[in-house]
Amino acid sequence: MTLYGYWRSSSSWRVRIALAYKGLDYGTVAVHLRKGRQHDAEYTAKNALAQVPLLEVEDEGRELRLTQSIAMLEYLEERYPEPALLPGDRTGRAQVRQLTEIVNSGTQPLQNFGVLKHLERVAPDVDRVGWACHFIERGLRALEATAQPLAGRFLVGDSPSFADVVLVPQLYNARRFGVNVSALERLCRVEAECDKLEAFQVSHPSRQPDSEEK
Amino acid sequence: MTLYGYWRSSSSWRVRIALAYKGLDYGTVAVHLRKGRQHDAEYTAKNALAQVPLLEVEDEGRELRLTQSIAMLEYLEERYPEPALLPGDRTGRAQVRQLTEIVNSGTQPLQNFGVLKHLERVAPDVDRVGWACHFIERGLRALEATAQPLAGRFLVGDSPSFADVVLVPQLYNARRFGVNVSALERLCRVEAECDKLEAFQVSHPSRQPDSEEK
Repeated sequence: MTLYGYWRSSSSWRVRIALAYKGLDYGTVAVHLRKGRQHDAEYTAKNALAQVPLLEVEDEGRELRLTQSIAMLEYLEERYPEPALLPGDRTGRAQVRQLTEIVNSGTQPLQNFGVLKHLERVAPDVDRVGWACHFIERGLRALEATAQPLAGRFLVGDSPSFADVVLVPQLYNARRFGVNVSALERLCRVEAECDKLEAFQVSHPSRQPDSEEK
Repeated sequence: MTLYGYWRSSSSWRVRIALAYKGLDYGTVAVHLRKGRQHDAEYTAKNALAQVPLLEVEDEGRELRLTQSIAMLEYLEERYPEPALLPGDRTGRAQVRQLTEIVNSGTQPLQNFGVLKHLERVAPDVDRVGWACHFIERGLRALEATAQPLAGRFLVGDSPSFADVVLVPQLYNARRFGVNVSALERLCRVEAECDKLEAFQVSHPSRQPDSEEK
């Protein structure tokens, strides 16, 4: 199993958390987003959206190549169900997926690398950090409000789920852009629980081989 | 079961397709996006992101309230598995979810109502239609390329799936913004197959009670 990613990409981090949580071995290939390597023809042949992550895995003797972090999380959950990152009950799973999508489609795409690059091209005078903060704050506030009645130690109940897997990297992005997240009490409390788990620790951007923070 | 939506919202249309395909009865509540009704306090108490759709459904005697169309599709699939909108095999499901997310997180959020409104606020001189076309073209080209080796009559094989459920409304959006989609041969061929199915016909925006096209 090979994960193509970038140390600071929050979507890559999601998949690293799931792989670590499930105790799976995998190789990594770094795709340097700031140097534009995601636009290399060799890479776009594998991922037409020129994004990370990308997962290559053998399944029953066949090569499966997957883009899209949520498709990867669902696939890994089906193939390696234990330890679980989805609840055992249908309504719990629905609530996890709802919270996950508030980040995955409702927040992250609006502040990611490619969108801010496009904003720079078409509106060079617009404050790109302000743009990112606006959508991150909106998304995290919605997540805090929606998670409130569902949360226990984690966003849905007392076990980590996809929702926590997307939360922690999104809070990391929030701080990178200077968003003050301290008022999001529930999210910060859940993040503190996640931070205790090895899967979240070893997958942290600063601990990746391609990290520039080293 | 009650679906809060807006006739022209592509995410609302996705859920209408799934409900119709599975033959489920439901009530509707129209949330008039252009009049700003999604920002009413009564509605944001139910959907903190101030978006449509929203699904209210009773499950084992309890009220379940869900935002996020993909969470709804997955929930409906689990609860009403036949007729299926996910393939029976694991790799097929992974491929469907990959294609679905190319639209759901990779395309639609970048051209939806709220984002174009925000763009208007922060950069009134930027061509908003051009912005939407850029991301729609990028997303649909990626979808065409990724789907190519998987496609049969539909995007993955010979049965409709989540991927087709998100494709058809995205193509509708594309045409609204003036994107020329005719070069996307595979997508257009699959759309023509979908158009033959009653579930796609009855859920069409122009056939909704709140449609302004009437």
